[in-house]
Amino acid sequence: MVRRLKRYHPPGTSPGTLPETGVRASFELFTYGSKGVSKTSAPSVAAALALPRERGWLRITGLDNRAVAELGKRLGVHPLVLEDILNPGQRPKAETHASYLFFVVDVPALTEVGLEEVQVSLLVFSDLVVSVEEKPNPFFATVEKRLALGSGRLFQFGSDYLAYALVDAAVDHFFPVLEKLGERLEGMEEVLLQQHDQILPQLHQLRRDLLRLRRSLWPLREAVGALLREESPLLSPEVRVFVRDVQDHVLYLLDILESYRETAASLLELYLSTVAQRTNEVMKVLTVIGTIFLPLTFIVGVYGMNFQHMPELAWPWAYPALWAIMVVLALGMLRAFRRRGWL
Amino acid sequence: MVRRLKRYHPPGTSPGTLPETGVRASFELFTYGSKGVSKTSAPSVAAALALPRERGWLRITGLDNRAVAELGKRLGVHPLVLEDILNPGQRPKAETHASYLFFVVDVPALTEVGLEEVQVSLLVFSDLVVSVEEKPNPFFATVEKRLALGSGRLFQFGSDYLAYALVDAAVDHFFPVLEKLGERLEGMEEVLLQQHDQILPQLHQLRRDLLRLRRSLWPLREAVGALLREESPLLSPEVRVFVRDVQDHVLYLLDILESYRETAASLLELYLSTVAQRTNEVMKVLTVIGTIFLPLTFIVGVYGMNFQHMPELAWPWAYPALWAIMVVLALGMLRAFRRRGWL
Amino acid sequence: MVRRLKRYHPPGTSPGTLPETGVRASFELFTYGSKGVSKTSAPSVAAALALPRERGWLRITGLDNRAVAELGKRLGVHPLVLEDILNPGQRPKAETHASYLFFVVDVPALTEVGLEEVQVSLLVFSDLVVSVEEKPNPFFATVEKRLALGSGRLFQFGSDYLAYALVDAAVDHFFPVLEKLGERLEGMEEVLLQQHDQILPQLHQLRRDLLRLRRSLWPLREAVGALLREESPLLSPEVRVFVRDVQDHVLYLLDILESYRETAASLLELYLSTVAQRTNEVMKVLTVIGTIFLPLTFIVGVYGMNFQHMPELAWPWAYPALWAIMVVLALGMLRAFRRRGWL
Amino acid sequence: MVRRLKRYHPPGTSPGTLPETGVRASFELFTYGSKGVSKTSAPSVAAALALPRERGWLRITGLDNRAVAELGKRLGVHPLVLEDILNPGQRPKAETHASYLFFVVDVPALTEVGLEEVQVSLLVFSDLVVSVEEKPNPFFATVEKRLALGSGRLFQFGSDYLAYALVDAAVDHFFPVLEKLGERLEGMEEVLLQQHDQILPQLHQLRRDLLRLRRSLWPLREAVGALLREESPLLSPEVRVFVRDVQDHVLYLLDILESYRETAASLLELYLSTVAQRTNEVMKVLTVIGTIFLPLTFIVGVYGMNFQHMPELAWPWAYPALWAIMVVLALGMLRAFRRRGWL
Amino acid sequence: MVRRLKRYHPPGTSPGTLPETGVRASFELFTYGSKGVSKTSAPSVAAALALPRERGWLRITGLDNRAVAELGKRLGVHPLVLEDILNPGQRPKAETHASYLFFVVDVPALTEVGLEEVQVSLLVFSDLVVSVEEKPNPFFATVEKRLALGSGRLFQFGSDYLAYALVDAAVDHFFPVLEKLGERLEGMEEVLLQQHDQILPQLHQLRRDLLRLRRSLWPLREAVGALLREESPLLSPEVRVFVRDVQDHVLYLLDILESYRETAASLLELYLSTVAQRTNEVMKVLTVIGTIFLPLTFIVGVYGMNFQHMPELAWPWAYPALWAIMVVLALGMLRAFRRRGWL
Ligand SMILES: [Mg+2]
Ligand SMILES: [Mg+2]
Ligand SMILES: [Mg+2]
Ligand SMILES: [Mg+2]
Ligand SMILES: [Mg+2]
Ligand SMILES: [Mg+2]
Ligand SMILES: [Mg+2]
Ligand SMILES: [Mg+2]
Ligand SMILES: [Mg+2]
Ligand SMILES: [Mg+2]
Ligand SMILES: [Mg+2]
Ligand SMILES: [Mg+2]
Ligand SMILES: [Mg+2]
Ligand SMILES: [Mg+2]
Ligand SMILES: [Mg+2]
Ligand SMILES: [Mg+2]
Ligand SMILES: [Mg+2]
Ligand SMILES: [Mg+2]
Ligand SMILES: [Mg+2]
Ligand SMILES: [Mg+2]
Ligand SMILES: [Mg+2]
Ligand SMILES: [Mg+2]
Ligand SMILES: [Mg+2]
Ligand SMILES: [Mg+2]
Ligand SMILES: [Mg+2]
Ligand SMILES: [Mg+2]
Ligand SMILES: [Mg+2]
Ligand SMILES: [Mg+2]
Ligand SMILES: [Mg+2]
Ligand SMILES: [Mg+2]
Ligand SMILES: [Mg+2]
Repeated sequence: MVRRLKRYHPPGTSPGTLPETGVRASFELFTYGSKGVSKTSAPSVAAALALPRERGWLRITGLDNRAVAELGKRLGVHPLVLEDILNPGQRPKAETHASYLFFVVDVPALTEVGLEEVQVSLLVFSDLVVSVEEKPNPFFATVEKRLALGSGRLFQFGSDYLAYALVDAAVDHFFPVLEKLGERLEGMEEVLLQQHDQILPQLHQLRRDLLRLRRSLWPLREAVGALLREESPLLSPEVRVFVRDVQDHVLYLLDILESYRETAASLLELYLSTVAQRTNEVMKVLTVIGTIFLPLTFIVGVYGMNFQHMPELAWPWAYPALWAIMVVLALGMLRAFRRRGWL
Repeated sequence: MVRRLKRYHPPGTSPGTLPETGVRASFELFTYGSKGVSKTSAPSVAAALALPRERGWLRITGLDNRAVAELGKRLGVHPLVLEDILNPGQRPKAETHASYLFFVVDVPALTEVGLEEVQVSLLVFSDLVVSVEEKPNPFFATVEKRLALGSGRLFQFGSDYLAYALVDAAVDHFFPVLEKLGERLEGMEEVLLQQHDQILPQLHQLRRDLLRLRRSLWPLREAVGALLREESPLLSPEVRVFVRDVQDHVLYLLDILESYRETAASLLELYLSTVAQRTNEVMKVLTVIGTIFLPLTFIVGVYGMNFQHMPELAWPWAYPALWAIMVVLALGMLRAFRRRGWL
Repeated sequence: MVRRLKRYHPPGTSPGTLPETGVRASFELFTYGSKGVSKTSAPSVAAALALPRERGWLRITGLDNRAVAELGKRLGVHPLVLEDILNPGQRPKAETHASYLFFVVDVPALTEVGLEEVQVSLLVFSDLVVSVEEKPNPFFATVEKRLALGSGRLFQFGSDYLAYALVDAAVDHFFPVLEKLGERLEGMEEVLLQQHDQILPQLHQLRRDLLRLRRSLWPLREAVGALLREESPLLSPEVRVFVRDVQDHVLYLLDILESYRETAASLLELYLSTVAQRTNEVMKVLTVIGTIFLPLTFIVGVYGMNFQHMPELAWPWAYPALWAIMVVLALGMLRAFRRRGWL
Repeated sequence: MVRRLKRYHPPGTSPGTLPETGVRASFELFTYGSKGVSKTSAPSVAAALALPRERGWLRITGLDNRAVAELGKRLGVHPLVLEDILNPGQRPKAETHASYLFFVVDVPALTEVGLEEVQVSLLVFSDLVVSVEEKPNPFFATVEKRLALGSGRLFQFGSDYLAYALVDAAVDHFFPVLEKLGERLEGMEEVLLQQHDQILPQLHQLRRDLLRLRRSLWPLREAVGALLREESPLLSPEVRVFVRDVQDHVLYLLDILESYRETAASLLELYLSTVAQRTNEVMKVLTVIGTIFLPLTFIVGVYGMNFQHMPELAWPWAYPALWAIMVVLALGMLRAFRRRGWL
Repeated sequence: MVRRLKRYHPPGTSPGTLPETGVRASFELFTYGSKGVSKTSAPSVAAALALPRERGWLRITGLDNRAVAELGKRLGVHPLVLEDILNPGQRPKAETHASYLFFVVDVPALTEVGLEEVQVSLLVFSDLVVSVEEKPNPFFATVEKRLALGSGRLFQFGSDYLAYALVDAAVDHFFPVLEKLGERLEGMEEVLLQQHDQILPQLHQLRRDLLRLRRSLWPLREAVGALLREESPLLSPEVRVFVRDVQDHVLYLLDILESYRETAASLLELYLSTVAQRTNEVMKVLTVIGTIFLPLTFIVGVYGMNFQHMPELAWPWAYPALWAIMVVLALGMLRAFRRRGWL
């Protein structure tokens, strides 16, 4: 949870200062249009942008400060935008600039060590989309495949549609993650009702994961909403319909997320109530046993005393009589317990 | 809860791709107008749409991807809408398109295995309503009957009124479900106050069901509200009054749902407090018994020791004196307990 | 809580269908104006409306479907409004129609069997107010008296002021109910701090009653607000000031209601904490007694054994020495408990 | 909490009916302007208003229905406003009328018997401010002193500034009350961590006091906001800046109030957790002692039996061997407890 | 928490009255522009403002009432603004005045004694920024350094950019504080799962710190938002983009703060559940031991009695038989416990 907070500049650093990330990115340029599609790996941003293209998608993988600076210089991107691109852990957001749209999204991935987020930034120009991805990821493989087909809506509409397709693919990756967490939740529910006790740390972890997903999804909702409200000419009416569909997905994800969060909270309450009820049962057993045998043990202790003058000890029927008294006492207490509903 | 999340496409699939559902739908066309009513079963969408009609209702039961694709082609429906129709578990919503309105609603049904939702999609054209229902259901039987009468508001107004009548019938089906859950809640309340303990899992299940209903109702409220706010010519002022009545019902259902949710939460708190209080009572009994008999048992243990030099053992009045001491001790402790309010 | 949900039509019934209530209403017409006031009992709606009047108030007591249908026919009231009038348990609301205003309010009454609501519907025409009351009730007696005086604002303003006076009288009846619940709450608070245990079911019942009142008051706030926002010519500026005062009362009632709800919730938490703390005290007593006497009882048990070779038994000072040891042990444990703050 | 609800009219009373309070007020008129300041006690409203004045402040102390009625008649104040003035326990509010502004505020005072509220009503005319105070109070002493100086902003601006100065002085009296409650909260925090147990009723009382303050502050925020939003010519732009400052104070008070409420809630949770943890510790001690000594006591009980055929009793090394066994058993159990972290 | 509430004037003091702080401030004037940068320490506000400057930053450290009064007189600042500058503990806010903007922010610092806030006030004129800092602090060191460079955006834009840079630097100081609290939270999480018990007071302290930070951050969000919404000519469009970035940071900080608060609440619930579960385990051990040994001890007590007529005592196989019975009894109970899942 704290991880993302770490890589901030020293307070007061000039805004728009690009951090020295020490990372070298990889560059792929997809050019497509009436003449078909081609995919070229380039050694640098400069090289990629120098390639001829009708429409293009520059895919940058890795937070490479030199490449991002180059990008800023060549495409006229605001330094604050460049800074956001290089700082993973941004709040998802959409910004409308004069010649481009800027969009950041945080895509979750369930790895072996837990939930992880990968930041994806998009710059949408009228004939070019630049994507910068924090690390290698499988999010856009399907979009590449659809592009390779050489026809379809990607070719029909402008670069806004390509950008939409990328955001849509990113949002789609929330579904399997949420599904996984939902399965864990269901697993815990079953286990809980069968009285296993290792569930508490797991439940707490799950609640943290849900909280983290929420931090990615809530601002995303605002971001997509802002995009739909603003009147940028970079977003055509046809593509706007598709963006509305992404908004739908985000709202749907949030619905489910919130209901998981409520279920998890209610599960903890169920746990607490279950434990309280079991403790109650345990105590009832102890109390029944104690209430019956402590007095009886006292009684037999009395006749275990060694006083020289204890007349009862000599009575011949004293021993069976005492047994009778004790049995009556025990039965009486059992009846009292039954009346109270403790048995 | 997770069920609905399952049938999504692989992330990144081209939007508007219709899933291969493997389902074959049934088709019924109701034509009605000045010449009366007729109902015809058709083998396909194409066949149904080819039938002559003044005004019509095409009722499709089953999520049949071929039929829906045909529908899209013939009536000019947007691929994203077709996709939503085929994916059950949509968030309820209303969309205004140029030549039609699109409305999705999730109708709950209490089956033997629990709460289940059936998705109903409506496409409202100026002279035609198409309904696509996820599975066979009793929701629209009464509308069919009213249509069969051959007169009434269904004949007086346009296809917007028919659409309204369908939505109204769907919303009406929330009432008996909510009533059932309310009865369960009342049942638990009574049982709880009589100390039965199997209530926890049932209460948890009820809370989940309420959460699920809520996920159907909240977006429905937004959807109907959106319909009322937007200025589509497809919705006439006369019918608008009726839609306001549906909104009323939805708000009413939400009021009750929320109060059930609060009651259920308060019931769990009541349970926890009740268990805590019972544990307290159990412990008081044990403590009273233990506090009285542990010291007494110690005392009689003392005079059960076998030391050769224990002068008390020889005193003739020692035994009755000890009894007296023990009785005084016990009575003193009982008085102390009474003063503390433990008895 | 569930009661109100019962009398809905079968799902899908034609909207505006009036239920067969089997109730026969009573009818009173008050005519008033420059020539004074007169009150006439009429056998039917038709008879009442046929009476001559300057301004009038038709008071209908009882949900009589035939009378309401007649009302609709003669005064041109929308079927959905008629349906709402006949279905008790409506959400309070205000609707502006072309020639009349429609207002529903749910007035609570504390009867012997608990909280009950009586639905009151008002139709406000330019020269006539029609009130339909679910059952006989004392709500409007004071308004009748004020009318009987033959002068005052009721005569100065139009029928909107009469309608306002009726709503005001209805809202006023929330005050004594809320006061009663507040007194119960205070009573519980006192009892709770004196350790009586029958409070839980009562507290739960009170929370339910508050929840129910809230379901009447929240929509009422919206309804009065809607009336104030809309620009109906049926509501004159002078009377508008008075309606603002009703809004004030509703807001004030809601303030108090919400603070009662919070107090009740906080009372339950107080209860739980109090019980937990008492259990803690009970356990401390048991633990102190047990910790002192279980070891001592063990020790005396040792010297109650019958081994032939137990040299201590023969030592002359063994018995007093053992007493000394046991006293020291007990005192040591008491000191340890005091240091821990358990005594 | 319920006190304020008591003095309402019987439901349905004509609105604007002034209650017979049986109180006689005192009247002071401050006249001020270019010719300096003068303060006169007057026997009645009529007498006070008859005095010559440039600008004036009529200070009425006591809810005197005759005086308020007179005020209404002479200054043209709406009957509903007069009614509000005479009914303490009003929701704080601001109303703009044609020739005057009406403002009500509820000022808290911590008396020996607890938190009490004093209602202050202000009527602001272009050259006169009338204040009606529920009972004698120290709220406006400083404003009187500032007025007595004969110069300053009170003389520079109109009567709106005087009204502002009064509201500001009233709001300022929330600070010491909140500070006092804050100190109590801090006191409880310290006490709680040192295990004293009388804290629960006090904490509950504090939560109620905070809830009550909140009922005074939240509507006050709305009231001041309404004043700032509305365009009354009675409020000059210069004074508007000052009213913004009052709004600031109210918001600040609300911030602190809400954080106190959260702290108090969190304190109760802390309490519950602390008690649970202490009970756990107490139980551990009892369980350790019980688990060690119950088996040992059983063992020595065995050899205290009087069977004639118990060969062990005759073995010479039986007694020391048994001691050895018991010591080993006890140490083993201690080790098991240490491993579980119970010691 | 209460500290900040202390230094208010007596209620009713004339607004804009400057408190006698008894503090003497230090003054530094930075002049910068086309001729480079210079930094001069001045003995007073008057001396500093008399220095020639192109653009300037007057940095005042210490809440010196004489200096602030002087500032007001020379620069025409409203008395209420001067009062706010001198009263630490202001709600963060932004105010637009005719010739200047006023901005207050509360910057947190984690000192050895806990969380502390330092108030920073900014007055932004067209060619001058005045900052008043409550006490010496490291917040603006980096801005000084950037200014000393003699070039960059600080020289390119107007004094609005300098003001932005200062606010940005202040907001940046929230990051390390929040990170520290996040680390503490993580530390507690680990400790909690390992059963250490000193965590409760620490967790409570952390919740209070988070609550305090929140009181600084929420109004800050409003303040920056107000700045962005208002149309002051003092804020140029170029700098507005940068202010949007500050808003971003504030939103991000709030996201994290809220998720910490939720995690802390959920940690307390985890704690409570963990303690309840451990108490349950402790009780199970005691109950198992008690249930086995209390009856056995009773039995051996029976045969420790000294009645003369106890035939069993003479039976030769009585002793081994009794052992057998007791072993069977104990095993039976162990099996019952295992079946209940208590072992
Ligand atoms: Mg940024
Ligand atoms: Mg994130
Ligand atoms: Mg976020
Ligand atoms: Mg959704
Ligand atoms: Mg939703
Ligand atoms: Mg919770
Ligand atoms: Mg969709
Ligand atoms: Mg949904
Ligand atoms: Mg759904
Ligand atoms: Mg409703
Ligand atoms: Mg509602
Ligand atoms: Mg809860
Ligand atoms: Mg209706
Ligand atoms: Mg309702
Ligand atoms: Mg109701
Ligand atoms: Mg209110
Ligand atoms: Mg109120
Ligand atoms: Mg609650
Ligand atoms: Mg709780
Ligand atoms: Mg009033
Ligand atoms: Mg009040
Ligand atoms: Mg109030
Ligand atoms: Mg504030
Ligand atoms: Mg504040
Ligand atoms: Mg609470
Ligand atoms: Mg101020
Ligand atoms: Mg602060
Ligand atoms: Mg604040
Ligand atoms: Mg953020
Ligand atoms: Mg954020
Ligand atoms: Mg909580």
